[in-house]
Amino acid sequence: MSKILKYIGEIITPYKTIEECPSHINKNGPLCEIKIYEEYRKGIFGLKAGDNIMILYWFDHDNRIVEITTSRNKPSNKKYGSFALRSPIRPNPIAVSVLPIERIIKDKIFVKGLDCLSGTKLLDIKPAIYDESSLY
Amino acid sequence: MSKILKYIGEIITPYKTIEECPSHINKNGPLCEIKIYEEYRKGIFGLKAGDNIMILYWFDHDNRIVEITTSRNKPSNKKYGSFALRSPIRPNPIAVSVLPIERIIKDKIFVKGLDCLSGTKLLDIKPAIYDESSLY
Repeated sequence: MSKILKYIGEIITPYKTIEECPSHINKNGPLCEIKIYEEYRKGIFGLKAGDNIMILYWFDHDNRIVEITTSRNKPSNKKYGSFALRSPIRPNPIAVSVLPIERIIKDKIFVKGLDCLSGTKLLDIKPAIYDESSLY
Repeated sequence: MSKILKYIGEIITPYKTIEECPSHINKNGPLCEIKIYEEYRKGIFGLKAGDNIMILYWFDHDNRIVEITTSRNKPSNKKYGSFALRSPIRPNPIAVSVLPIERIIKDKIFVKGLDCLSGTKLLDIKPAIYDESSLY
């Protein structure tokens, strides 16, 4: 049993290769563009600059496993499973980031500092109804 | 272009019908059980009671559209698109909730106050690396 995801748009960032791409978001990073495909465009009605949004996007790769590994963000030598890490190596490589909207121009939402390759597919946008952005 | 989601487990809550089911999470709500399927079980290695986790699950329905509607949580008469709401009516009905782990017993993670029907399919668990739970 499974379900098919729909791509609702795509994300334009300055990063063309994995090597250039940062491993986490940065509220003060470069401007990124979230482009909503035409059929889904009306879904952003009511969003405005300054709103914190939760952005769901797809880290496309074929390595959809659970692994146990160390983390560069956690104490060295300690190991963690995929569900204890934010690594893209996981059964459903859905990334979730919360950032404020810088501005909206027609079908494009601009935020700063996303951590994905240019061309990454967008899955969903939700209002961040709790303070999901305070630690960055 | 699209991708297939894998179900990695399921969620047991006290709610058998939509009518019983709350519309949002509640940190002080009843205990719920997140059961990880055997092949994904090792992925929770390193998680422990007290950790805040981000839980991704699938609100199964066939109404995968964007709509513009009012919200019971926002000023009356104002309308919002699906991406400005946390409503399950959206192209990819993925719910995202952040809650602390109450306890872990083998392949089961217990949290309080999830907002879904019993039997809801689990998509992912991530550590909540920022304070995503402060508003409840």
